[in-house]
Amino acid sequence: MSHASKISDGVCDQVTEFRLVHADCTWSRQTADCEHFEGRLSDAKIYESSSEDGVTWTVVSPIVFTYRVIQCERLLDASNDTLLFGHISNPTELQALKNNSKVMKRFIVIDETVNDLYGSQVAAYFKARGVTYKILPLPTTEENKSMTLVTRILEEVHKFGIDRRTEPIIAIGGGVCLDITGLAASLYRRRTPYIRVPTSLLAYIDASVGAKTGVNFANCKNKLGSYIPPVAAFLDKSFLGTLPRRHISNGMAEMLKMALMKHRGLFELLEKEGRLLLDSSFQPLKRIPENVHSDPASVSTRLAIETMLEELAPNLWEDDLDRLVDFGHIISPELEMKILPALLHGEAVNIDMAFMVYVARERGFLTEEEKRRIIVCMQSLDLPVWHSDCTLDLVLKSLTERLKHSGGFLRMPLPTALGKARIFNDTEESTVCQAFKKWCDEQCETTMKPE
Amino acid sequence: MSHASKISDGVCDQVTEFRLVHADCTWSRQTADCEHFEGRLSDAKIYESSSEDGVTWTVVSPIVFTYRVIQCERLLDASNDTLLFGHISNPTELQALKNNSKVMKRFIVIDETVNDLYGSQVAAYFKARGVTYKILPLPTTEENKSMTLVTRILEEVHKFGIDRRTEPIIAIGGGVCLDITGLAASLYRRRTPYIRVPTSLLAYIDASVGAKTGVNFANCKNKLGSYIPPVAAFLDKSFLGTLPRRHISNGMAEMLKMALMKHRGLFELLEKEGRLLLDSSFQPLKRIPENVHSDPASVSTRLAIETMLEELAPNLWEDDLDRLVDFGHIISPELEMKILPALLHGEAVNIDMAFMVYVARERGFLTEEEKRRIIVCMQSLDLPVWHSDCTLDLVLKSLTERLKHSGGFLRMPLPTALGKARIFNDTEESTVCQAFKKWCDEQCETTMKPE
Ligand SMILES: NC(=O)c1ccc[n+]([C@@H]2O[C@H](COP(=O)([O-])OP(=O)(O)OC[C@H]3O[C@@H](n4cnc5c(N)ncnc54)[C@H](O)[C@@H]3O)[C@@H](O)[C@H]2O)c1
Ligand SMILES: NC(=O)c1ccc[n+]([C@@H]2O[C@H](COP(=O)([O-])OP(=O)(O)OC[C@H]3O[C@@H](n4cnc5c(N)ncnc54)[C@H](O)[C@@H]3O)[C@@H](O)[C@H]2O)c1
Ligand SMILES: [Zn+2]
Ligand SMILES: [Zn+2]
Repeated sequence: MSHASKISDGVCDQVTEFRLVHADCTWSRQTADCEHFEGRLSDAKIYESSSEDGVTWTVVSPIVFTYRVIQCERLLDASNDTLLFGHISNPTELQALKNNSKVMKRFIVIDETVNDLYGSQVAAYFKARGVTYKILPLPTTEENKSMTLVTRILEEVHKFGIDRRTEPIIAIGGGVCLDITGLAASLYRRRTPYIRVPTSLLAYIDASVGAKTGVNFANCKNKLGSYIPPVAAFLDKSFLGTLPRRHISNGMAEMLKMALMKHRGLFELLEKEGRLLLDSSFQPLKRIPENVHSDPASVSTRLAIETMLEELAPNLWEDDLDRLVDFGHIISPELEMKILPALLHGEAVNIDMAFMVYVARERGFLTEEEKRRIIVCMQSLDLPVWHSDCTLDLVLKSLTERLKHSGGFLRMPLPTALGKARIFNDTEESTVCQAFKKWCDEQCETTMKPE
Repeated sequence: MSHASKISDGVCDQVTEFRLVHADCTWSRQTADCEHFEGRLSDAKIYESSSEDGVTWTVVSPIVFTYRVIQCERLLDASNDTLLFGHISNPTELQALKNNSKVMKRFIVIDETVNDLYGSQVAAYFKARGVTYKILPLPTTEENKSMTLVTRILEEVHKFGIDRRTEPIIAIGGGVCLDITGLAASLYRRRTPYIRVPTSLLAYIDASVGAKTGVNFANCKNKLGSYIPPVAAFLDKSFLGTLPRRHISNGMAEMLKMALMKHRGLFELLEKEGRLLLDSSFQPLKRIPENVHSDPASVSTRLAIETMLEELAPNLWEDDLDRLVDFGHIISPELEMKILPALLHGEAVNIDMAFMVYVARERGFLTEEEKRRIIVCMQSLDLPVWHSDCTLDLVLKSLTERLKHSGGFLRMPLPTALGKARIFNDTEESTVCQAFKKWCDEQCETTMKPE
């Protein structure tokens, strides 16, 4: 048994496995072979062994995280229940809440810019629903993404007062707002449920669908944070209608990441329709409503989220270090923090991906034509494919850092075909340098235009 | 199926259940009925349904927490491996680490007072083992138990630099030090392993064995925190030899809590030997080493931890609100924060428990004789059984608060015999008031002595 323990200086007895049974408000231990017990059995186990020096207990206890990611429309229409009740999947619980005459409370953190655009609609929604609410607009920019704003939220939440069980905190904004609010919620009373309402494309397809929260610290990207998923994320594409074009491109970088790693169909869709999606901000082109199951905006976001969830759900706490979703995130954290705020997250990610495509080419995984198609697709999405601050020094330093933090392996995701990838530990420094040289030779010129 | 979802405004299709399979570095979804797949199966699941407005995904993903609680002796002897390797249960991993020639690093947070007493021994240990270490002594008092100290630790950890996978942060001190350091570790890089070395009795039997971390906020006890267990807790009773007598009593309150809730044997042991344990600070009485499996110090700590683990392991994240371990913690948080630093945590807990014993008596759960025995036992441990600041107002306010935060139920653990208890939602306010009156009548006098 893997739990057999060896205590230094002590002679180790047998390990006993205990199950836990609940009866009469009390948990009690039962040896695993005991078959006659009454009560509720826990999934947790306790293993016990004893030595001369005392006892050793090993606790093994699973916690199940459940959360919902819901694509919806007209989220801020007062007639739409989603914002208030969409996080509840149990019909009985839902009915009980709806029948409850107690006035509901909601605390909402919203990005300042988003508040200027949608704040009055948000307020109108809660007013129409008879909810006691407090909207806290914050300047949730990358530069402000720190514990200071987390504390600010905590103070206001505490002043306002919410029921930690039934009144989730709602975050409305881009990835920064969702990450900061998520961290505040995961700290408050050791865990308060929260809801993510992404208003940027990046947040829609990425920051909303996983468990990660975080803030920057000591000039490092997301150095502090938690892995507490929201109870729900409500995805309404109509917010993207007001998102600046550069931020649409920005989000498309993470979409392209999933395409390159695991979905050729999505890549080809982006090749073909990406530019149009960028031009239209993922909004319906005509007055007649489009079919959510076939128009490019719906299909591309759906595929991006599905592929993302496939990779995140089995590895919610990132215990497995081999992660395809790390593609584009090997060099970009250094680069992003170095020249903040010149580059957006997705832009830095794209520069990283573009370079890695050269590494994949150098290793013979991609043909010259495949490489070209990828770079052309990036350019059609107005994404930078090279940057003068992404020096060889920075590249090598990032790889060294990764080696240190990834248990001694490089774990470099690289495309091996369009929409296929693997994770490699054996990329030589010389290959990296050659790829870097070729990358600069080919992309430096084309990129040298004023921003 | 409980995941069948109802999206407002949308017609709901069938819910499809997907399992997740890992092959070629890539996770992919498989419908649950598909029986032909190759690769590793995840415990996580994704449920998908679609409506007119888009898709709803429900992610269900379990995370398994594993941690070890190890009673040991001579923890700071350089020959003892525990402090460096005790958290590792896998023999292969252990061997690999021991054979690794890389210099190990350890970051240690230590209570200032404990540092004065044991700091040089801690330093000598790591020096002797050739470890690069940094010891950070902090004034980890209840008044300082705040985010400020958490940030301080984070800054120092970041400056020092550790391998987030293999170099756990070590906390040495009382419950305050362990709680603060645990929170810092759970934030750093979204989760860095940490080790608890309790030096107070309260920390030994309570703060070390569960998952909770925390700091006070806005004048509320442990308002911010996390449920991230340490990788290990190393329990060495010899630290208790220097602990002030009042703090021994303090820890015995939590021990008594477990006895009253679920272990008559432990209660009788405390009745009989509690005073002696207090007088001897849980240290061996004679020069000859005692048998760790039969002397009162060993038996009582072992039973306290075993009963505690039974209740904590199946409810690590406190999702179940019906908790016997909440006994003594209904009124005490208010009381403790109100007159900080006059009362220690265990003292406030004991006052709460003494009052609840009167409530249990009032409800007819305990005989007069049982009530008397409990109060006498508390007094023999030098624990306060009444306090003038614990007013009826404060009692009622605490109960109202609890009602609010416990989903509308009081969930009041009450002893129903010696070493037996249940959780009640039906205690009338009049019963509480009568119990309060009797409590004051009987205990006010005896307690009115100068501190
Ligand atoms: N938690 C995760 O898993 C995860 C995943 C990816 C990225 N992130 C984080 O997300 C952040 C980047 O997210 P982002 O790109 O959304 O940045 P952001 O939050 O800074 O938002 C981008 C900009 O768009 C504006 N904006 C947002 N919605 C708008 C709208 N509907 N109309 C007009 N303007 C709008 C914002 O005010 C902001 O200026 C990074 O900090 C990154 O670390 C987190
Ligand atoms: N995380 C949990 O599950 C949990 C459980 C119970 C209590 N707690 C928390 O623990 C805290 C109380 O713990 P505590 O009573 O250990 O308080 P503490 O950390 O303040 O320590 C008590 C005092 O004893 C001193 N001390 C500690 N060890 C010593 C030693 N070996 N020799 C001499 N002096 C020593 C300390 O300097 C301090 O003055 C509270 O904040 C409470 O909320 C947490
Ligand atoms: Zn990203
Ligand atoms: Zn306690």
